[in-house]
Amino acid sequence: MQVIKNYVEQNRQRFLDELFELLRFPSVSADPKYKGDVLKTAEFVALKLKEAGANQVEVCATDGYPIVYGEKIIDASLPTVLVYGHYDVQPPDPLELWHTPPFEPTLRDGKIFARGACDDKGQFYMHVKAFELMMQTETLPCNIKFMIEGEEEVGSDNLGLFVANNKERLKADVVLISDTSMISMENPSLETGLRGLAYMEVEVQGPNRDLHSGVYGGAVANPATILCQMIASLHDENNHITIPGFYENVLTLSEDERKALNDAPFDLEYYKKDLSVDDVWGETGYSTIERTGIRPTLEVNGIWGGYTGPGAKTVLPAKANAKISMRLVPGQDWRKISELFKNHFESIAPKSVKVSVTAHHGGTPYVTPVDSVAFKAAYKAIEESFGKEPVPTRGGGSIPIVALFEQELGIKTVLMGFGLDSDNLHSPNEKYDVFNYYKGIETIPLFYKHFTDLSK
Amino acid sequence: MQVIKNYVEQNRQRFLDELFELLRFPSVSADPKYKGDVLKTAEFVALKLKEAGANQVEVCATDGYPIVYGEKIIDASLPTVLVYGHYDVQPPDPLELWHTPPFEPTLRDGKIFARGACDDKGQFYMHVKAFELMMQTETLPCNIKFMIEGEEEVGSDNLGLFVANNKERLKADVVLISDTSMISMENPSLETGLRGLAYMEVEVQGPNRDLHSGVYGGAVANPATILCQMIASLHDENNHITIPGFYENVLTLSEDERKALNDAPFDLEYYKKDLSVDDVWGETGYSTIERTGIRPTLEVNGIWGGYTGPGAKTVLPAKANAKISMRLVPGQDWRKISELFKNHFESIAPKSVKVSVTAHHGGTPYVTPVDSVAFKAAYKAIEESFGKEPVPTRGGGSIPIVALFEQELGIKTVLMGFGLDSDNLHSPNEKYDVFNYYKGIETIPLFYKHFTDLSK
Repeated sequence: MQVIKNYVEQNRQRFLDELFELLRFPSVSADPKYKGDVLKTAEFVALKLKEAGANQVEVCATDGYPIVYGEKIIDASLPTVLVYGHYDVQPPDPLELWHTPPFEPTLRDGKIFARGACDDKGQFYMHVKAFELMMQTETLPCNIKFMIEGEEEVGSDNLGLFVANNKERLKADVVLISDTSMISMENPSLETGLRGLAYMEVEVQGPNRDLHSGVYGGAVANPATILCQMIASLHDENNHITIPGFYENVLTLSEDERKALNDAPFDLEYYKKDLSVDDVWGETGYSTIERTGIRPTLEVNGIWGGYTGPGAKTVLPAKANAKISMRLVPGQDWRKISELFKNHFESIAPKSVKVSVTAHHGGTPYVTPVDSVAFKAAYKAIEESFGKEPVPTRGGGSIPIVALFEQELGIKTVLMGFGLDSDNLHSPNEKYDVFNYYKGIETIPLFYKHFTDLSK
Repeated sequence: MQVIKNYVEQNRQRFLDELFELLRFPSVSADPKYKGDVLKTAEFVALKLKEAGANQVEVCATDGYPIVYGEKIIDASLPTVLVYGHYDVQPPDPLELWHTPPFEPTLRDGKIFARGACDDKGQFYMHVKAFELMMQTETLPCNIKFMIEGEEEVGSDNLGLFVANNKERLKADVVLISDTSMISMENPSLETGLRGLAYMEVEVQGPNRDLHSGVYGGAVANPATILCQMIASLHDENNHITIPGFYENVLTLSEDERKALNDAPFDLEYYKKDLSVDDVWGETGYSTIERTGIRPTLEVNGIWGGYTGPGAKTVLPAKANAKISMRLVPGQDWRKISELFKNHFESIAPKSVKVSVTAHHGGTPYVTPVDSVAFKAAYKAIEESFGKEPVPTRGGGSIPIVALFEQELGIKTVLMGFGLDSDNLHSPNEKYDVFNYYKGIETIPLFYKHFTDLSK
């Protein structure tokens, strides 16, 4: 542990400078205008893996953005850890709400503000630096492989094919990912599950052109009004989702499991205060922890239609659109849920409009086995690094690829994230605490040590 | 009549060229970026009034955009007509749906395509040219005054004060406006009423920042979802508006009046085909003509919130907004309706969000007396010009200033419009038929003749 602390101490500033360099690339995978920047980011990641000591480093082309691969095989008889991360980031919009520009990382109050600071550049780069540390201090106890992709924020469309075509190269004993959160640095936690995702886009078409709302208003279906009515109908008065069959295969937890989950430290008053809301919201009969952890949800991620500029325009818009995504829990299949959504949404459209529904992408929910060697190793690493046992939690987010690893490679994943829920992921002013960054770099080598020891 | 036809025939091309020149000014009053263009348009209108023969021409400054005034007093003992129009136009968005640019007027199939072609540049400019015609052919039978404003599309905020401060200058026997439609050129019609307007903007604020929809989704009220639920609740299953007190003072028509209204030529199948909709929509118990003419309505003019760019962003937005306007009928007061809306909308907000409601502008509904000299003169002018008696109709649109003229100047308005409902007012590809433009220029001098004769 002292070797680790010394190395981090000696390289403190450089570790931060390198992360800042990585954060300056606007690697937004959703928007084609950033294409050149996303590609440059992949090259940068490859270079840094090489510098840290990886062999066989390759920027692997796909039909979309490339996957960066690198490895260090010290002994084929030792266990192998496959590190997964992503170098792409969410769009920075709305730009006007950032206090400092999203792609000019800024240090403020011990926090790094930048798009991708936590999700996932700051987190996957801890692994690159922990790897360098183990190489430089000659403490790497097993084999390591890196697979850092560039399409996580848009559904990892090409990773599935890459994994299927590279089963031998990716062969490992566990997948290690830092792309999730802890409760706090005082209450370290370890995620035991992730929600799945089904992301849809809907369009309601009314008349074939925008109309004058005075001349036609009241006599022609307004697609914005109809879209609102359709969206409103997706939740009932208890905030249950009304799509027929939606809850059919949802795995329910035992009373004991629910109790354990609700025993995690959680301060509802602080939660509300942090978000400046007077009340929480959600499905009747479940706590906030349960609503985000073990229950499926449906959210409007975006809605638009008609005139949205300054002042007044008396238009009856020709169409209105929305992006709607559902978080899924174990038991639910995202392809089936996407289909149920599409059928239901089309079925509730009145005759006076036309509705089209397209699926963006999906992801399968995942639950980590808590009795595995890898989970135990992560548990011990955190305990040793933080001086406190981690609390097992269920994450509300989705890393769709986790279920794929199990299916294609037959291996489990450990979700050892060092972010915080308050890191503004996907929001303006995304941040990552400097403390967490260094803490992660210190904790990761301990995982390798315990994992190798426990595997013996 | 032959004198009129000859003059129009001899000046056909020039009349069109001048209108094109006027249409090239992007005089969008709602968007501050067009300020310079709006001001230039006022100067152009003043110049054209002067060239046509007006005296006392003045670009009258206001706290907003100027009002262009001009007059020709031939004999103080003769009646005076006050012509009102507006040189500002609606925003051209969405630009990508225009077949030719909105501010490069284009002639296609006998139609002039441009923003403002019909509303209201093409229509008020007919009056400038009809005035020129009467001056040049020495047939102006009475006094004429012009008041052409630049804020009609944003609520005529400064016209009220101008009218109040210029009562003597604006003294007249009738206001004549061409800013409405006819059923068709084969079925000429004359509007006997206009709906009022109350235009509101609402904002639903959820959490204090955009959130990750996985980490927080299902536990924090999504303002886009809540806004949809609130908007959906504004109509009941019969498409009645649910705001308490909304219908309280609505004047109802007798069965005979309703029958007369529904006797107007109207082809529902053509109406649906023209708009490419499979069904119309509206308040149960009323026909399409009634829904747009004598019943108040509520329309979403714009809605926005969250991520609206390409691809997927899993965000739970901090806020969502909508522009919502109501068309009002005689008996309803726009200030009271705005208040009722605000109170109701705020009252239905759940505790988990904060709602703010602001009023953009309003307008009072209006009914024209059909037994007045001016209405009879317009009726006769159309009958003579079109060879067919006009059908009395109720217009669905609003010209808020009409009620103000009555209140401040004590005079009635005649709504002699030559547009068509299919002119794409406030929409992409706004147009005005060349035929209607010339027909208007020919009909207007007949109004002056009959109005002067009938006033004797």
